[in-house]
Amino acid sequence: MTSPALPAPATWLPLVERALAEDIGSGDATGAAVLAADASCEAVIEARARIVVCGLPVAVAVLEAVDPQLRIETLRPEGVFAEAGTPLLAIEGRARSVLAAERTALNFLGRLCGVATHTRRHVDAVAGTGVEILDTRKTLPGWRVLDKYAVAVGGGRNHRFGLYDALLIKDNHIAAAGGVAAAVKAARAAAPPHLMLQVEVESEEQAAEAIEAGARWLLLDNRTPAELRRLAGRFREEAVLEASGGITLANLRDIAESGVHRISLGALTHSAPNADVALELRSRRRG
Amino acid sequence: MTSPALPAPATWLPLVERALAEDIGSGDATGAAVLAADASCEAVIEARARIVVCGLPVAVAVLEAVDPQLRIETLRPEGVFAEAGTPLLAIEGRARSVLAAERTALNFLGRLCGVATHTRRHVDAVAGTGVEILDTRKTLPGWRVLDKYAVAVGGGRNHRFGLYDALLIKDNHIAAAGGVAAAVKAARAAAPPHLMLQVEVESEEQAAEAIEAGARWLLLDNRTPAELRRLAGRFREEAVLEASGGITLANLRDIAESGVHRISLGALTHSAPNADVALELRSRRRG
Amino acid sequence: MTSPALPAPATWLPLVERALAEDIGSGDATGAAVLAADASCEAVIEARARIVVCGLPVAVAVLEAVDPQLRIETLRPEGVFAEAGTPLLAIEGRARSVLAAERTALNFLGRLCGVATHTRRHVDAVAGTGVEILDTRKTLPGWRVLDKYAVAVGGGRNHRFGLYDALLIKDNHIAAAGGVAAAVKAARAAAPPHLMLQVEVESEEQAAEAIEAGARWLLLDNRTPAELRRLAGRFREEAVLEASGGITLANLRDIAESGVHRISLGALTHSAPNADVALELRSRRRG
Amino acid sequence: MTSPALPAPATWLPLVERALAEDIGSGDATGAAVLAADASCEAVIEARARIVVCGLPVAVAVLEAVDPQLRIETLRPEGVFAEAGTPLLAIEGRARSVLAAERTALNFLGRLCGVATHTRRHVDAVAGTGVEILDTRKTLPGWRVLDKYAVAVGGGRNHRFGLYDALLIKDNHIAAAGGVAAAVKAARAAAPPHLMLQVEVESEEQAAEAIEAGARWLLLDNRTPAELRRLAGRFREEAVLEASGGITLANLRDIAESGVHRISLGALTHSAPNADVALELRSRRRG
Amino acid sequence: MTSPALPAPATWLPLVERALAEDIGSGDATGAAVLAADASCEAVIEARARIVVCGLPVAVAVLEAVDPQLRIETLRPEGVFAEAGTPLLAIEGRARSVLAAERTALNFLGRLCGVATHTRRHVDAVAGTGVEILDTRKTLPGWRVLDKYAVAVGGGRNHRFGLYDALLIKDNHIAAAGGVAAAVKAARAAAPPHLMLQVEVESEEQAAEAIEAGARWLLLDNRTPAELRRLAGRFREEAVLEASGGITLANLRDIAESGVHRISLGALTHSAPNADVALELRSRRRG
Amino acid sequence: MTSPALPAPATWLPLVERALAEDIGSGDATGAAVLAADASCEAVIEARARIVVCGLPVAVAVLEAVDPQLRIETLRPEGVFAEAGTPLLAIEGRARSVLAAERTALNFLGRLCGVATHTRRHVDAVAGTGVEILDTRKTLPGWRVLDKYAVAVGGGRNHRFGLYDALLIKDNHIAAAGGVAAAVKAARAAAPPHLMLQVEVESEEQAAEAIEAGARWLLLDNRTPAELRRLAGRFREEAVLEASGGITLANLRDIAESGVHRISLGALTHSAPNADVALELRSRRRG
Repeated sequence: MTSPALPAPATWLPLVERALAEDIGSGDATGAAVLAADASCEAVIEARARIVVCGLPVAVAVLEAVDPQLRIETLRPEGVFAEAGTPLLAIEGRARSVLAAERTALNFLGRLCGVATHTRRHVDAVAGTGVEILDTRKTLPGWRVLDKYAVAVGGGRNHRFGLYDALLIKDNHIAAAGGVAAAVKAARAAAPPHLMLQVEVESEEQAAEAIEAGARWLLLDNRTPAELRRLAGRFREEAVLEASGGITLANLRDIAESGVHRISLGALTHSAPNADVALELRSRRRG
Repeated sequence: MTSPALPAPATWLPLVERALAEDIGSGDATGAAVLAADASCEAVIEARARIVVCGLPVAVAVLEAVDPQLRIETLRPEGVFAEAGTPLLAIEGRARSVLAAERTALNFLGRLCGVATHTRRHVDAVAGTGVEILDTRKTLPGWRVLDKYAVAVGGGRNHRFGLYDALLIKDNHIAAAGGVAAAVKAARAAAPPHLMLQVEVESEEQAAEAIEAGARWLLLDNRTPAELRRLAGRFREEAVLEASGGITLANLRDIAESGVHRISLGALTHSAPNADVALELRSRRRG
Repeated sequence: MTSPALPAPATWLPLVERALAEDIGSGDATGAAVLAADASCEAVIEARARIVVCGLPVAVAVLEAVDPQLRIETLRPEGVFAEAGTPLLAIEGRARSVLAAERTALNFLGRLCGVATHTRRHVDAVAGTGVEILDTRKTLPGWRVLDKYAVAVGGGRNHRFGLYDALLIKDNHIAAAGGVAAAVKAARAAAPPHLMLQVEVESEEQAAEAIEAGARWLLLDNRTPAELRRLAGRFREEAVLEASGGITLANLRDIAESGVHRISLGALTHSAPNADVALELRSRRRG
Repeated sequence: MTSPALPAPATWLPLVERALAEDIGSGDATGAAVLAADASCEAVIEARARIVVCGLPVAVAVLEAVDPQLRIETLRPEGVFAEAGTPLLAIEGRARSVLAAERTALNFLGRLCGVATHTRRHVDAVAGTGVEILDTRKTLPGWRVLDKYAVAVGGGRNHRFGLYDALLIKDNHIAAAGGVAAAVKAARAAAPPHLMLQVEVESEEQAAEAIEAGARWLLLDNRTPAELRRLAGRFREEAVLEASGGITLANLRDIAESGVHRISLGALTHSAPNADVALELRSRRRG
Repeated sequence: MTSPALPAPATWLPLVERALAEDIGSGDATGAAVLAADASCEAVIEARARIVVCGLPVAVAVLEAVDPQLRIETLRPEGVFAEAGTPLLAIEGRARSVLAAERTALNFLGRLCGVATHTRRHVDAVAGTGVEILDTRKTLPGWRVLDKYAVAVGGGRNHRFGLYDALLIKDNHIAAAGGVAAAVKAARAAAPPHLMLQVEVESEEQAAEAIEAGARWLLLDNRTPAELRRLAGRFREEAVLEASGGITLANLRDIAESGVHRISLGALTHSAPNADVALELRSRRRG
Repeated sequence: MTSPALPAPATWLPLVERALAEDIGSGDATGAAVLAADASCEAVIEARARIVVCGLPVAVAVLEAVDPQLRIETLRPEGVFAEAGTPLLAIEGRARSVLAAERTALNFLGRLCGVATHTRRHVDAVAGTGVEILDTRKTLPGWRVLDKYAVAVGGGRNHRFGLYDALLIKDNHIAAAGGVAAAVKAARAAAPPHLMLQVEVESEEQAAEAIEAGARWLLLDNRTPAELRRLAGRFREEAVLEASGGITLANLRDIAESGVHRISLGALTHSAPNADVALELRSRRRG
């Protein structure tokens, strides 16, 4: 199996530039005043807790954006666990550059390793059930492709990236169209045929109606494990069933064993705790 | 007292545009297929839990960027508590526009109310001590001005915005300069004189040396309450003392009572839980 | 049925800005020298041949970008036929503004009406067969969303917008994966599950293998009508069949009657003749 | 004679970036799922019909923007004919990169070779007459500098690039100024003196008046060959005469022999058929 | 005669945005802390010395970019003299907005009125001679269109805007081409025919050769008044003669009376003293 | 002491791009027509008068942006004096590239060396007094970081960069707050505590009140040397005193000897004469 591909850099480099601009501004006033222009150093970025490694190419891009002449070595692949104390990146070059880039690089890694690690916890919790853990569109504004990359690195699957790459019929669409079947039919008639269709259903009747109308992917929002078991018992051969809403690590296994195929959680991205990573200076010398 | 001023829109509107681009892309395929072009609706965005209100002007900007003809009313001021069920924004206009903007607006509010609410918890924990709660530069990349705004709305104070608007001498600077006094002197000689200077000290001797060299603001990183009490007992009249590192809601009060003037916490921004807000459609009609 | 939704303006306004910048540059030197600053005029943009109307909101955006105070009335809906001489837009305001925006507005309309009209010719050619006419990714660089909008306005359906919103397994992927079945399986295992999958097959055997592996959408490239008939006879109940390659208005009907469900043509966008539209000044007066 | 210089990359690289963004988006989902991250390949881009080569440096820029580590060799100079089957570019590197860049590179080449080839047809049609073939401002929005480059590569001359780099007095300006002479005088008095002046005239009298007022370059729009002959007989020593409007390959030679100096045609850019170019994978291997 | 047209806003609004970003950054910290959010004020921007008014629309754009709800009245037209104390703009609205925009608006006006006033001094110095005063490309980087607008408002004429809108053959081109005649011929053969041609000549022989080769516009660099008189005596009927180099207000009249038609001076833009303008608060009140 | 650090390139490269775009546009028409594509040359940029060297890294960035393959050697460090005739940069590469970049590179250097040289004159004028020369926010719009860099290279100190990195309470703030003490107190209560505070005072009473309220940095605007002496006599031990307003090289020494600590002058940046630098071609050859 191939590991998740990094999103096209053009999609996230603007965020790197924005992040550097907001942190560095006109320059690192302390470094400019206290460090010699030609002083160089060696440093490592390392894990301070057990984490899933994610985002090292982004951290490298941060460092290179500050100073293309830094020499950077990536020490761990994406997606593996790193124990506390594990070095992730080795850096060598101008001390002013390393210290100017430090906080931004760490802020990216703290978030990306954090999401990947948090996702892995959920993936591990459903191990053996065959259920897939999916993300949602509840990502941090500006971070969609990076957040979804981190979910994939953590072992989750990506749900749609936005409103443009899949159809999701919800209650408001159903009400507007005059029923589940009418909504499904309208979507299939008018939307580009390459877009997959999912329907959110609120009852067994709606589920049956959606499948009858041709839907093959249902979203079951805020259902109890008992409800999910009944729905899965009846429909899991006819459609892909996805549970979401009110799911935590506490009840995740229970839901995974209900018979649904997929579980999607906003918490993977909107509530991932920060991963603890730090930059350590190894030595310092005049250039 | 004046309430915190919203950062200049030019500093965060690009993030709004990026967020909308990543979520909407070429368009909301479901809405375009299922909703009539002239259907309109009324909706409210409301709190689903007790939160500190923050970011409504940003949410308004999201909605207006999608459709300048939406009519939007702001129902609560920034910085107050809203109980679960409290409506925050009332929106009226094209249904396609409201649903296309919904997720992005909520994602901004979830983050901003989340940081403000999390900050308020820390501020309340030190109530009566006179100690100020400060943020750090551990904000989400791309989010610096908004994260810091949310801290201020939550009752916290802002530490420096970046490397350019204050001087912070750390261990690496001290080592490079050959000592605390040398570093302070170098900074004062070379840096623009309008920048305030803070020095991170690791011992009582360094603290004394920094103050002797003219520093009036010290950073005391990863000290125990006992250590902080001793340092505060000796230096709190001569310099502003700021504690940071390893501080949680559990030990915050203890540290606040040590005699330091300020406490800064990365957790305000890097680990704020998402606030629960949602959009509720009130009615729908053909235009 | 709803008419095609205009793509989100944020996706094409940058092209409008670029187009205006390249045509107007520092300013219309002739207008600035010869026309009085306060002279105003009335004008219409009209069809000079029978065309499918497409892109009026884009032309309006061009005019408004040059001068927000122009008064513009849209006279025809998108997607209808306009005979030669039909007025499409009525414009009133500063003469300098109208003449500065004229060429750019017409260049957009010439292209968009051209693609829509060209598409309509193909759609009409398959009338009654139930076959859908689709576009491809052979759009003009920079014009993807607008070209695809014009295809939809002309009555065509949109194929995937890019490499990100559907999977299309081609010969190179099949060779790399070691066969059709392996490629389909790899795609399903690794790609986000919300993406629809299409497989390009070069023989009846490959078609059978793809369907056996679970593919439900086949691309049949450069097949003769006879070959398509045979493939359709065998597979059209099991998968959506799409013909492409070497198709022109001359053989289109023949292919449509072969039993395939869809026909995709690069020519809709890469070889659409320009539509003839012009701006006519109706009157002129000092402001 | 020097060959046409490629426009400054800063003027068209943004179009390359936009084109890649719209095609690749967050990434090539098929390639990421099916191709190994370290698989490499060799490929050529080749002509599939007889074309004038144009735009190879742009295609190279596309490829390098996707992956700076691709090794690319340019096999033919700009402006020469290439027969069907002629290789134009040789590419070696990551298979994922080559396939992700393929469509965008080909779309640029299809357009640029198309315009150059179409222009060459017109230039050849007037061979021996000494008449120059010029483009107009009827280029594709966003494509001005590239379209004009392709015209030059095809052997045409460039007319003004926009409203800013030459003066063209048309009927509306003449009406506004109160006559040809007044318009010419106003233009010369107010416009920057480094801008060349052309006057569109609708009659022999206007032509005489324009020349009398000092104009040395006339635009003769929608004139028959007979009319052009009479005008050229009288004025061709006193002014540069440019014919335009209603000119096709069918009547081009006739018009070229009328005695005018220049012929400008919107069709060079607004109706150039796409050139047939394709990418062929030569081999493939694991890295 | 028409007054100079303001350059297309799209060409200078990015400079306004950049200027505001660099001055305001995340916000006016003093205003946010000391002024009430709802306090409003009235203010005028006025001349503090005798100046030529220039750039008020730019200052208005600055103010509106900070706060679209400010009410602004333009009190003087562009290009007139304003004595010290003359109000130029009246402003009413939020006090925080007015004070945040003040410095940037004044910095633009100081420059633009400065260039216009400085130009007017030179224009007045050649009054009655019929000689035109022209600018050069020695404008402030980033300011080309605004600097040239200010020159035009001051009564000067604009020379070419850049390397793209006219041909200027200098010594290096002549040496590369192998002589004046060869260079002129090469330029006419290869460059777009709508571009005017100027030749810099260093001797009477070169001037004669250039005119013989068809040049009708000569640049005479660093010549004494005596040399200019001789050149003008011989060539002023055959070509437009432009003097430049080493010209100051002290010798300008002398050179203007030499018989040349035009004089171009870098000093109009690279050494214009700042004009003294200031913002005066008239009153202040709570909103 | 360390020399001033160049501002982060991300802050000024956009200005370089804008400057090149406005000068080169679609291309250097003369160079493209007259110079062979493969002709190369050697050139130097040199001082034409005695100047303080400043901005060579910016000029290098200009040259590299036009042609990354130019070989450029920096011959003098920033901040030293260069006599007329001193070579500053040596350049080798494509002649077309060198001539296309020439004017923009020189325009940057003319400004930056100009500001540095002008600043040095003021710094030298106060030599031995211990007084610091500071700039203001009266920089050229778009040039803030570069102008301030040039001041630092010239030996001046930088005052605040904008409204965001220090607090300056002026008369309007004092009036709004209801007095000096109230304004100081409001600022300290509401503004981020890392921002230094300066107060502009108009009388001895205000100065005393400000210091009493805790201010340690006073701005004394438009005071005579006599007034400054009296204020300095009374307050110079209690606060940093900065004089500004109406200060020229003529009275600068007098003011510096009044006892104030700092003098700030808008003239450093708003009225710096251009420095005379030029590009000289040394040789030329076919590639």
